[in-house]
Amino acid sequence: MQNLHKGAILVLSGPSGAGKSTIINAASAEIGEYYFSISTTTRAPRIGEENGVDYFFVTKESFEEDIKAGNFLEYAQVHGNYYGTSLKPVREALDAGKLVIFDIDVQGHRLVRAKMNDITTSAFITPPTLHELETRLRARCTDDESVIVQRIENAKEEILAVGEYDFTIINDTVDAAAREFVIIAKAARLKQSKEDQEKFIQQWLGQVGLG
Amino acid sequence: MQNLHKGAILVLSGPSGAGKSTIINAASAEIGEYYFSISTTTRAPRIGEENGVDYFFVTKESFEEDIKAGNFLEYAQVHGNYYGTSLKPVREALDAGKLVIFDIDVQGHRLVRAKMNDITTSAFITPPTLHELETRLRARCTDDESVIVQRIENAKEEILAVGEYDFTIINDTVDAAAREFVIIAKAARLKQSKEDQEKFIQQWLGQVGLG
Repeated sequence: MQNLHKGAILVLSGPSGAGKSTIINAASAEIGEYYFSISTTTRAPRIGEENGVDYFFVTKESFEEDIKAGNFLEYAQVHGNYYGTSLKPVREALDAGKLVIFDIDVQGHRLVRAKMNDITTSAFITPPTLHELETRLRARCTDDESVIVQRIENAKEEILAVGEYDFTIINDTVDAAAREFVIIAKAARLKQSKEDQEKFIQQWLGQVGLG
Repeated sequence: MQNLHKGAILVLSGPSGAGKSTIINAASAEIGEYYFSISTTTRAPRIGEENGVDYFFVTKESFEEDIKAGNFLEYAQVHGNYYGTSLKPVREALDAGKLVIFDIDVQGHRLVRAKMNDITTSAFITPPTLHELETRLRARCTDDESVIVQRIENAKEEILAVGEYDFTIINDTVDAAAREFVIIAKAARLKQSKEDQEKFIQQWLGQVGLG
């Protein structure tokens, strides 16, 4: 646990269709090395989804064992399936001094804050309006009508939590949103854990040379 | 009050001799327009100090009237003199959407946080060690020995408050410190007031176009 907080965490939330992946990709050359946290889930892979890329796909039994062992940074049950973030890869990335980026929902953000508030920065990414979100969801033609309606309803709930985030990124144009994202990611890296601050104070005072 | 929070606040604290002014000057071309908050004081101007540049110099009576009228964002009494930040110029700068930069002490930071937490970002700027601070204070040859000793004692107190700040800037080299300062100042500008967030949510939801 000693070096747990050497890196820092950046939580991104926002409705499906907000353009989170597009923004991260557009910004990635400028934000330096980071680890994009991959969630673990018990739901079945969809066509095209790869284990270790889109999710870590595990059995319900394995997931529940990890819950008991305290191996999750955060987890939740949605429509009968578990989704969670395993602590181990996050801890390894933090130990290596990396910025760990999470794409998780409002509830996940609360759980990360509860455990690692001091090294966490968060941004809520959203299209400029609900109307625009709907337009984008329909334009990409990947979801059934029922899924779109569900995503819109979720978005109407999630937007209410905007005040819990350090920053709001309004994804009007990808360029402008990516520029803001770069600033936020760079600032996120500068966050220090309380533990590191305590060490710093001791070191700072230790080298007293008065006289 | 309606537009009070259009801008944002960046509080800088740190020991005298930490290099705050040098860092701001080195970074100023990159951080865009800002208003550097000038403190108001009842102490007498020193040689070379100008009213409206270094401080607003006022009488004790005038200062105390302003306290009663609630005209200070923060103020304190130090060695029998008042020091404070008048609300009016800060409010005007915020209304104009500017970043307002404060060079105030740990106590001032707490008072600004108490009043305008949602739009405030803060950084503690310090030389790498207490020993280095002492070396720098002696090298600049501007202070009497008693003043240096007092500054060192203050620094030993203030460093303990590092954990109250969003960021610590360790001024080892001016270049590196200025680069960090630019990131922090740019991120500070992206902070939204709770008020603006509430307005945003209403506007976002208002433009519903389902169907």
